[in-house]
Amino acid sequence: MEEIFIDFDKEGGLVPVIAQDQENGEVLMLAYMNKEAFEKTLETKKATYFSRSRNKLWVKGETSGHTQLVSDIRLDCDNDTILLIVEQKGGAACHKGYSSCFHTSVNSGKPVIMAEKVFDPEKVYK
Amino acid sequence: MEEIFIDFDKEGGLVPVIAQDQENGEVLMLAYMNKEAFEKTLETKKATYFSRSRNKLWVKGETSGHTQLVSDIRLDCDNDTILLIVEQKGGAACHKGYSSCFHTSVNSGKPVIMAEKVFDPEKVYK
Repeated sequence: MEEIFIDFDKEGGLVPVIAQDQENGEVLMLAYMNKEAFEKTLETKKATYFSRSRNKLWVKGETSGHTQLVSDIRLDCDNDTILLIVEQKGGAACHKGYSSCFHTSVNSGKPVIMAEKVFDPEKVYK
Repeated sequence: MEEIFIDFDKEGGLVPVIAQDQENGEVLMLAYMNKEAFEKTLETKKATYFSRSRNKLWVKGETSGHTQLVSDIRLDCDNDTILLIVEQKGGAACHKGYSSCFHTSVNSGKPVIMAEKVFDPEKVYK
């Protein structure tokens, strides 16, 4: 671990983490990691984030079953952002049932939903 | 503008913004926007960020010529992260000369550079 420098101190212990689908390149979500979440992800190859709202580690998909198996971890040139290349189990990263959290276009100046739901959140989160 | 809600207040006025290449889906970089940068990007369709180090608006590529023409702007389900789909002029987003800032894999536990430079930074930034 000594050789990887990630600048966790820059923003109070957390760095932003982008998850990208290894199959189709879709950007799935953005979440955050602290050092412990990074080390757990590196070790287990299961995406593990730090939840800012729950203030604890969060294995993605632990409730929904929609885990993310990590095939690559990339670090940016400022050492302060991580990109995970993942196999998205269940085909959906978004808790609202869409494959990607970025399913709303605002390019026209108004929000327009661009995707269809992959699952029904009411059935998955009971 | 009234209809788009972006939660700039959540983290002191800034939201993270992912730029993705519209041609090949490559995740190019992550930067930040304040409300003004978002509105300027929406209006001009040229990616405009807020530089945390220089503390001012920053039109991406204003020095290098490697601007980003925005073809879509997506907002995530928490309204606190933006995804830009861009045409990356000059074929490179990274100031170190790589197409993507995420050119270093740390998946093995050691940093490994995965890409070749598209341009020589010493020639572009004089």
